[in-house]
Amino acid sequence: MKGSIRISEIFGPTVQGEGPLIGRPTVFVRTGGCDYRCHWCDTLYAVLPEFREDWTLMAPTEIMAQVERLSGSTPVLVSLSGGNPALQPLAPLIALGRQKGYTFALETQGSVPQPWFAALDWLMLSPKPPSSGMDTDWQALDECVRAAAGGPHCAVKVVVFDEDDYAYARRVASRYPALPVYLQVGNPAPLVTHSGPGSEEADLDDVMERFRWLVDTVAADRWFTATVLPQLHVLAWGNKRGV
Amino acid sequence: MKGSIRISEIFGPTVQGEGPLIGRPTVFVRTGGCDYRCHWCDTLYAVLPEFREDWTLMAPTEIMAQVERLSGSTPVLVSLSGGNPALQPLAPLIALGRQKGYTFALETQGSVPQPWFAALDWLMLSPKPPSSGMDTDWQALDECVRAAAGGPHCAVKVVVFDEDDYAYARRVASRYPALPVYLQVGNPAPLVTHSGPGSEEADLDDVMERFRWLVDTVAADRWFTATVLPQLHVLAWGNKRGV
Repeated sequence: MKGSIRISEIFGPTVQGEGPLIGRPTVFVRTGGCDYRCHWCDTLYAVLPEFREDWTLMAPTEIMAQVERLSGSTPVLVSLSGGNPALQPLAPLIALGRQKGYTFALETQGSVPQPWFAALDWLMLSPKPPSSGMDTDWQALDECVRAAAGGPHCAVKVVVFDEDDYAYARRVASRYPALPVYLQVGNPAPLVTHSGPGSEEADLDDVMERFRWLVDTVAADRWFTATVLPQLHVLAWGNKRGV
Repeated sequence: MKGSIRISEIFGPTVQGEGPLIGRPTVFVRTGGCDYRCHWCDTLYAVLPEFREDWTLMAPTEIMAQVERLSGSTPVLVSLSGGNPALQPLAPLIALGRQKGYTFALETQGSVPQPWFAALDWLMLSPKPPSSGMDTDWQALDECVRAAAGGPHCAVKVVVFDEDDYAYARRVASRYPALPVYLQVGNPAPLVTHSGPGSEEADLDDVMERFRWLVDTVAADRWFTATVLPQLHVLAWGNKRGV
């Protein structure tokens, strides 16, 4: 079907667990398929081709019908996530939803710029640090930032597991001084691992230990314009899907 | 000393644990003295007269010298908290700090409006719900909102322990439709209780259970413009002081 969108899951309302919209009620629309293979990916079921049979091709009208059913037709923030949602033709969905009063945030690693980023309310660029095992295409990331100019609120989010990731976050911040930067505590216990299902339990002590380390690092470094956050949904629901 | 400010503690840099600035690096300046006696107050050491001997009268220049020492003279967000900081003559401190590039957020229950609220960067109004045992002076709260008009970012934060508190938060939100509302999960285990020192350990399972209940309540009620947050510092450091 022309214009169809590959969907891994649609769920909510719950609250956004990350970044500038942390705590905000939202319905998640997760697309299937990704151009990255991050070591610590926490949504491999929306990334790896072997989960392809769990994905559904849906028209924008079908997706919005599902979102409206979940939200009782009350406009709510729609969080477009993945996988990499920038691989999907999302412009018609965003246009349709906005007509109905819904707002849209999209999160992507910034490897595939799209002109329709300008139609979003929020663009969260989440370039992947060294611990992911991925390389950053800085030109593509620059184009993503440019695509959002004058349009959505734009912010950068970097997952930080260690000192190398932290140095990478600093590099990203100095490349885009106008963008607010969110440092996100890494969660080393994803739901599905490359070798099979992982644990639904998150190690909260470990997550909060990593959070305290990151706060100490930022404070010692006097990086006072960064924001440091753990993943709220991991604290609340562990690595469980659909919340 | 004329112009002196009653200080309970100055500490940081750490991160703000609550509200719209959650995760943001900040130095806390906590004033001593309060016109309220909330049942679940988590900073009674900055409220009750029997802790008065722990408080210090400080000049604005002394306070800023301490803030600059803690921040290595790098401008940072200063969080003015209490007690009720609106009881203190803070205008000269704010003017002095802003000259040096520091930004200021103040949190108050909104019982004492001050014209100098207009000089803040952020005003967090935190009127107290029924579970606090306090009554709201709605006229005073209206005046606080008016005092901030055209000046700082203004937001409302309401602690929610139960259904009555939730209904109260709804009432506050409908009175001030232009202000963003933050619903904060209650923490029933304060550091110092009326009957003596409490536990430094927070019951994280209890806090997150309350968070999940509040998310479910907001979702079922389709209150999609509210933001739901736990106290991040409680998750990270329990009820410990100075972080």
